[in-house]
Amino acid sequence: MTDQPMSEQERLAAASWSLLVEHPDPVAGALVAQLGPAEALDWVQHVLDGRIDAGHPRWRQAVDRWAPRLETLEIRRQLEVLQRLGGELVVPGDTQWPTALDDLGFEAPHALWVRGRLSRAPGLAVVGARSATSYGQRQAADLAAGAAERGLAVVSGGAYGIDAAAHRGALAVDGDTVAVLAGGPDRLYPAGNTRLLEQIIDTGAVISEYPPGAAPTKHRFLARNRLIAALGLATVVVEAAWRSGALSTAAHAAGLSRPVGAVPGPVTSAASAGCHRLMREQHAVCVTDAAEAVELCGPISASAPREPDSPPSLLDGLAPLESRVLDAMPARGAADTANLARVAGVAPAEVRSALGRLELAERVERHGSQWRRAR
Amino acid sequence: MTDQPMSEQERLAAASWSLLVEHPDPVAGALVAQLGPAEALDWVQHVLDGRIDAGHPRWRQAVDRWAPRLETLEIRRQLEVLQRLGGELVVPGDTQWPTALDDLGFEAPHALWVRGRLSRAPGLAVVGARSATSYGQRQAADLAAGAAERGLAVVSGGAYGIDAAAHRGALAVDGDTVAVLAGGPDRLYPAGNTRLLEQIIDTGAVISEYPPGAAPTKHRFLARNRLIAALGLATVVVEAAWRSGALSTAAHAAGLSRPVGAVPGPVTSAASAGCHRLMREQHAVCVTDAAEAVELCGPISASAPREPDSPPSLLDGLAPLESRVLDAMPARGAADTANLARVAGVAPAEVRSALGRLELAERVERHGSQWRRAR
Repeated sequence: MTDQPMSEQERLAAASWSLLVEHPDPVAGALVAQLGPAEALDWVQHVLDGRIDAGHPRWRQAVDRWAPRLETLEIRRQLEVLQRLGGELVVPGDTQWPTALDDLGFEAPHALWVRGRLSRAPGLAVVGARSATSYGQRQAADLAAGAAERGLAVVSGGAYGIDAAAHRGALAVDGDTVAVLAGGPDRLYPAGNTRLLEQIIDTGAVISEYPPGAAPTKHRFLARNRLIAALGLATVVVEAAWRSGALSTAAHAAGLSRPVGAVPGPVTSAASAGCHRLMREQHAVCVTDAAEAVELCGPISASAPREPDSPPSLLDGLAPLESRVLDAMPARGAADTANLARVAGVAPAEVRSALGRLELAERVERHGSQWRRAR
Repeated sequence: MTDQPMSEQERLAAASWSLLVEHPDPVAGALVAQLGPAEALDWVQHVLDGRIDAGHPRWRQAVDRWAPRLETLEIRRQLEVLQRLGGELVVPGDTQWPTALDDLGFEAPHALWVRGRLSRAPGLAVVGARSATSYGQRQAADLAAGAAERGLAVVSGGAYGIDAAAHRGALAVDGDTVAVLAGGPDRLYPAGNTRLLEQIIDTGAVISEYPPGAAPTKHRFLARNRLIAALGLATVVVEAAWRSGALSTAAHAAGLSRPVGAVPGPVTSAASAGCHRLMREQHAVCVTDAAEAVELCGPISASAPREPDSPPSLLDGLAPLESRVLDAMPARGAADTANLARVAGVAPAEVRSALGRLELAERVERHGSQWRRAR
């Protein structure tokens, strides 16, 4: 990856690479990282023309894999389609390029086909099942709204269920949100979310690592999940069945050493089984509200301070010794120090000291040598 | 703690210690561990009579703490009361003594006042809030029944809510269950659970570290929780508010290096807030059914094997390459190898190999040089 803005020729080459490879393709990633996109493309052409030797069989294999698409490459036409849609190509080195993607190494995308505008805000990935319950959708919307209010961009996959609820939660508070599609940016998939995705384009961004026309295949849904995970400082799974694509997003996040959170639900709900599984098997953090989701993202945003720990309230705010002495006091009537010492199992000197403090706290009253509970 | 059966005199002394101290009292535990209960009692009397010096001020302080109750000690009368109730005293070294309590070290009880019969089965502590929801009570009963069916004794505190549901779950499958009271064994507390506690006495055990007549004070509820934790190979909290006594049981279990589990619930339920807190802050394991609760207890009982991991199903049981080639196949009509290679982004040789396997799996059909999806 380069930090310098790319030349026009390199931008075209980067776009071409995004069309040539099926992700993840770390061989392409390694080649482009070494030579830059344009020279890497030249090298492939030279190998195909027989002018140079690929060297290792693994490189030759890769060239053969890229060759069928290279023959029919029409990258300028794809860019025109994107332009007509009001979108733009974003490549490494652009100010809009999300540097969080660079953590993917050789599996980073070569270019992003963007509709809308990618903000520079840090992201929180909020993902989950398409077949979500109303409980899950409510939690997704609340988490997303809370995260967006705290300045995070909510990243998700634009799917039905949890994804859509998360995007809507962010939009509801005029927050930032990014939908990462599995197919090209012209395919607002699924069709039932077209209106939602258009709203996201208006205020956030709908992005893809594939050019217009690319179909959202099963394989691409799974590969796409790595982008969602990489764009989030953390990933929270809101609802997921025992087997669910959302778990693959969580696995990608864990692979990137990004924190993974899971929202618990009733153990009787199949839609929460994947979340509970993540907590049990993958050490996902239990997340119950937006503050806890944001906390996963680290010190970028301070979460509300928690109340202090429990022991004081369990003893009505008393220290253990005082509580024991007060417990020893009869409900009605009075007792003397010796009696309290016996009942409480405490030395008389300690009883006297505790009684002094309890008297100050107006919990007991002295009547001569006798003590009773304060009214 | 001794492994030898105690003499009658020592049994009486152990019973006396259980009456003298307010738990936890590690100074008493250390003294009894060093001298045995009878000699320890003599030593205290000698110090009080001025015949020997206590030595360190901390010992003198402890003697002063025990002295008030020693004056009025009527241990034989207490034992008679227990006997009239059909109970018996169990001391370290007895076959009925739960050696799991020895892990409490100097904070172990000196004797147990037992009604019913303590089994030798390993324990699972199932605890939670008194103000439980019907969801929580259902989970507690299911967990307890499943654990009891797998040969574990369900240990709890006999309280309303989760505790009662856990005991009832074990009783429902004729399983073993132990209720640890905060007061003496004659006080079947709370009164509303008298019938339940009597049922437990019939088939399991109701136990206390205090003699008959001891009141169930707040202090004793908290101290009692360490016994519940120690009697369980693991502790599972089913429902608990953000601040709840059940969390103190979990803390005791963690202090004993015993696993702690927590049952998740809706994040909208205040009754589950303490469970989620345990998972977040104390690394409690997320427990969703009896098998997972039993699994916490270690290899004593094999839990049902889980289904294998998810990736295969996400790709309809196909390997990634085959899935990509199948995805590239048009929904209607046919395609040749070159076309499939381009659409799938895969080398033609790989496409041919994948097509061979897909044909064997009857997912595609060959028509001359063309391939189509199998009907």
